[in-house]
Amino acid sequence: MRPQDIIRKKRDGEHLTREEIEFFIEGVTRERIADYQISALLMAIYLNGMNQAEQQTLTEAMLNSGIILDFTDIAKPKADKHSTGGVGDKTSLIIAPLVAACGVCVPMISGRGLGHTGGTLDKLESIPGYRVNLSTSEFRDVLERIGYVMNGQTGEIAPADRKLYALRDATATVESIPLIVASIISKKGAAGLDAMVIDVKVGNGAFMRNEARAESLAHALVGTGNSCGIRTRALLTDMNQPLGRAVGNANEVRECLELLRGEVNDKARPVLDLSVELSAHMLVLSGLENSLASAHTRLQRTLDSGAALECFQRNVEAQGGEPRVFDDPDRFLPLARESVKVESPRPGFITRVNTTEVGHAIAAIGGGRVRIEDTIDASVGFMAEARIGDAVGPAQIIGTVLCNDLLKGREAAARIQAAYEVGEEPPSEVPRLIREVINE
Amino acid sequence: MRPQDIIRKKRDGEHLTREEIEFFIEGVTRERIADYQISALLMAIYLNGMNQAEQQTLTEAMLNSGIILDFTDIAKPKADKHSTGGVGDKTSLIIAPLVAACGVCVPMISGRGLGHTGGTLDKLESIPGYRVNLSTSEFRDVLERIGYVMNGQTGEIAPADRKLYALRDATATVESIPLIVASIISKKGAAGLDAMVIDVKVGNGAFMRNEARAESLAHALVGTGNSCGIRTRALLTDMNQPLGRAVGNANEVRECLELLRGEVNDKARPVLDLSVELSAHMLVLSGLENSLASAHTRLQRTLDSGAALECFQRNVEAQGGEPRVFDDPDRFLPLARESVKVESPRPGFITRVNTTEVGHAIAAIGGGRVRIEDTIDASVGFMAEARIGDAVGPAQIIGTVLCNDLLKGREAAARIQAAYEVGEEPPSEVPRLIREVINE
Repeated sequence: MRPQDIIRKKRDGEHLTREEIEFFIEGVTRERIADYQISALLMAIYLNGMNQAEQQTLTEAMLNSGIILDFTDIAKPKADKHSTGGVGDKTSLIIAPLVAACGVCVPMISGRGLGHTGGTLDKLESIPGYRVNLSTSEFRDVLERIGYVMNGQTGEIAPADRKLYALRDATATVESIPLIVASIISKKGAAGLDAMVIDVKVGNGAFMRNEARAESLAHALVGTGNSCGIRTRALLTDMNQPLGRAVGNANEVRECLELLRGEVNDKARPVLDLSVELSAHMLVLSGLENSLASAHTRLQRTLDSGAALECFQRNVEAQGGEPRVFDDPDRFLPLARESVKVESPRPGFITRVNTTEVGHAIAAIGGGRVRIEDTIDASVGFMAEARIGDAVGPAQIIGTVLCNDLLKGREAAARIQAAYEVGEEPPSEVPRLIREVINE
Repeated sequence: MRPQDIIRKKRDGEHLTREEIEFFIEGVTRERIADYQISALLMAIYLNGMNQAEQQTLTEAMLNSGIILDFTDIAKPKADKHSTGGVGDKTSLIIAPLVAACGVCVPMISGRGLGHTGGTLDKLESIPGYRVNLSTSEFRDVLERIGYVMNGQTGEIAPADRKLYALRDATATVESIPLIVASIISKKGAAGLDAMVIDVKVGNGAFMRNEARAESLAHALVGTGNSCGIRTRALLTDMNQPLGRAVGNANEVRECLELLRGEVNDKARPVLDLSVELSAHMLVLSGLENSLASAHTRLQRTLDSGAALECFQRNVEAQGGEPRVFDDPDRFLPLARESVKVESPRPGFITRVNTTEVGHAIAAIGGGRVRIEDTIDASVGFMAEARIGDAVGPAQIIGTVLCNDLLKGREAAARIQAAYEVGEEPPSEVPRLIREVINE
C-alpha cells in the first residue's frame, strides 16, 4: 500500500477501506507518512467527505493510536463535556466541579485557544501555578481524590490526533465533519468515558456558522460516540454573541468564580444557564438522575451549598494552583493595567454581533493566539455589557476592553465597536441559547 | 497574508488574486511556506480548479521564480516540443536533431520517467558518458555549436516548479490541468522560446485517459503558452498502445538510431510518422516553412541526407556521450542478458492494450521508476511485435521482454500478456495516431 494511492482514492471521491484508513493512521502515528501527504489527504477528506463507516473507522484508528486510560476501578460513572469552541465559552470551568460534586467522575482532556476561540487550558493557566501537564499517574490521582481533573492531551493519548490537529489549522482543513468527529471522539474515548455531552456551537462565532451543518456535525458526533461505546448526546447552542460577559482568560476565570459564588450578573447569566443545562444532561446520561428536572434540582442544591465552588478550589490546589485565588481573585489573578470603553455608535437596539471579530480583536492584543506558537497575556480581554436585543442610548457603554497597551487596546475597541450592529428597530428575534438536543 | 487563508479561499472554490498567487509561489521558492501547506493548496487546486486568469498568473509566477535564459543573440528561431508523457514515446530524440538540422534552435529542458512513463533524460543517459546536467554556460555553448541541446531542469530554472512537481507525485495531484499547464509553460518559457509544439497524449497510457479532458488540457496549454509570448500549438495524439516497437531506455535509443538511419521497421513506423508531423509544425511555427506540406518535404530531405543523424551524433559528442554508439550500437549501448517471449494467449485480433500496465511491468524490472529515488536499468525493456488491429495466430509472439533476471522477466511477460486483449473479431476502429491539432 502507498500513501499516494490512498490519497488518490479519496481525491476521486471513493470510499476508503478499513485497511487503508488503518494503514494511513498507523503511518501518521509512526511518522512513516510525510506531512505533505497527510495534508493532501486532509484536504481531499475536507472536500470529498467520508461516509459513516469511514468516519467510524477513522475515529477508532485514531483512538487506538495511543493508550486508553482505564478507570474501571473507580466506582463512579465517568463523564465529560466537550464544546466545539466559541468566544467567552468558559462552561467547562463550572461544569467539571459542579457534576463532580454530584458524584460524576470527570477526566477532562482539554485544548488551547487558537484564532478567535479561547481554550480551557489557557484559562486555567491564568491561575498562578495551575498545571495542565500532569503525568498519567498524577492525572489518575487528582481524578480519584477530587472527582475531576483538567489536563492537556499528552503524547500518549491519540498521538495521531495531535499530529492531524496541528496540520489542520495550518492547512485550512479544520471545519470538516469527519475530521472534527474523529478528533473529538478519539481523545474522549481514550479517557475511558461512559457518557459524554457535546456542546455544538452554531452561529457567527462558531466553526459551524450554518445551523444545518452544525446539526449534521451533532448527529455525526452522537452516532460515532455511541458506536464507540460512549453514551453521547449533543446540544446545539447559540454562538451569535460572546457567551456571558467576560472574554479573555483571567477575567473568564473571575466570572466563573462569581457565578459559583452565587453572584450572578445579568450579562453573565447565560454562562450559568448553559453550564447547568449541560450538567443536567451529564447527570442523566451518567445514570445519577432519571430526569432533567430532578437533575436540575440536584445541581441547584449543589451550587447553593457551595459544594461546587469547594470542589473547584480543591482541584486548583491538587493541580498546583494558588488556592488564595478563591479568597481574593483580584490579587492573585492577572489584571490588565488599562481599559478602553466601547461606546455604542448610535442609539437603538443591538441587532447583531460579529462574534468572530470580537474574538480576533481580543486575540490580537494577546488574549488568544493568532499563530499556534504565540504566548497568551492572561490579563487582557473584553467585558461585554450589552447583548442582542438590548436597547442602547447614544454613546452608551456597550463594553470595556482590558489591555496593557493603550494603543492596541483602542484598536481592539474600534474593531469591537464595529462588530456590534445597532439598528433602529429591535431584532426580529433574539437567538435562543439552547437550540436543540440531539440524541441520535 | 497567511498561506492558510489562501488555501481556505481555494478550498471554498473562490478565485485567487494575483497578489495571493505571487505571495504563495514566492513563499514556495524561498522555502517560507511549509510543504504541508503547499500540498493542501495543490489538492484544493486539483479539486476546485483555476480559471484562465489564475492559471496564467500561476504560470507567470512560476516562470519568474527563477532565471530566464536569453538566446536573443542566436539569430535563429528558438523552438521546442513537449510531450505530456507516455509509453515508448522517444520522439524528442528524433525531433531535436531533425529540426536543428533544418535551422531551428532547440534548447530542450527535459524530464525523467516516473511510474509507467519514460523520460528523455533517462533514455539519453543510456548512451555512455552522456551528460544532462550541463551548466548554463555549457548549455548555451552546445546550443550555439550544435543547434540543439538536451538538459535537465537546473535549480535556477523555475525552482517553484521543481518544488511543486516533486510534491505532486507524492500527493496524487499530478493530473490537474492548471498545475500541468503552469509546470510545462513555466519551464519552457524559462528557455526563451519563440515557438512550442505540445504533444498531448490521450488514451489508456496517458495521464489524460479521456479525450475531452485531453482537449481541455491542450486548449489550456495553447492559451497560456500564447499569453506568455510563445507561439504554441498542441497535437492530440494516441497513447492507447506503446509508441513504436521499443519500450525501455537503451532500446528506445537504438530504435531512434535505426529510424534516423532509414531502417524503418513496420512496428516502429509510428514513431517516425509522429516525429515528422510534430517537427513539421515546429518548422511552420518557427517561420521556416509556410505550410505543413513544404515542411514535410524539407524534413524528408533532411532525413534522407543523413543530416539529422549527423546532428544527433554531434550532439552526443558535445554532451560527453560515446560517439561510437553510432557505429556499433550493440557494443556501446547496454544490452539485457536475457529475453522472454510474450505469446498471444489465443488466436484472433489485438483489440486493446492496457498501455499503463505495459509501462508498469517494465518499470518493475528496472526500466522505469516505481519510486522517485529508484535507479534505472537502461538495458531492460520490451519490444512490441503486434499493434491494435493485428491478426495473431495461436501462441504467436506478440513481443519480447528484455531483462537481466529471468524470474522477474517472466513476471513482466505475464503482466504484458494479460495487458494485450485478443478478440475473435478485429476492433471496430484502430486508434488514429494524430487525433486533432489545436491552435487556440
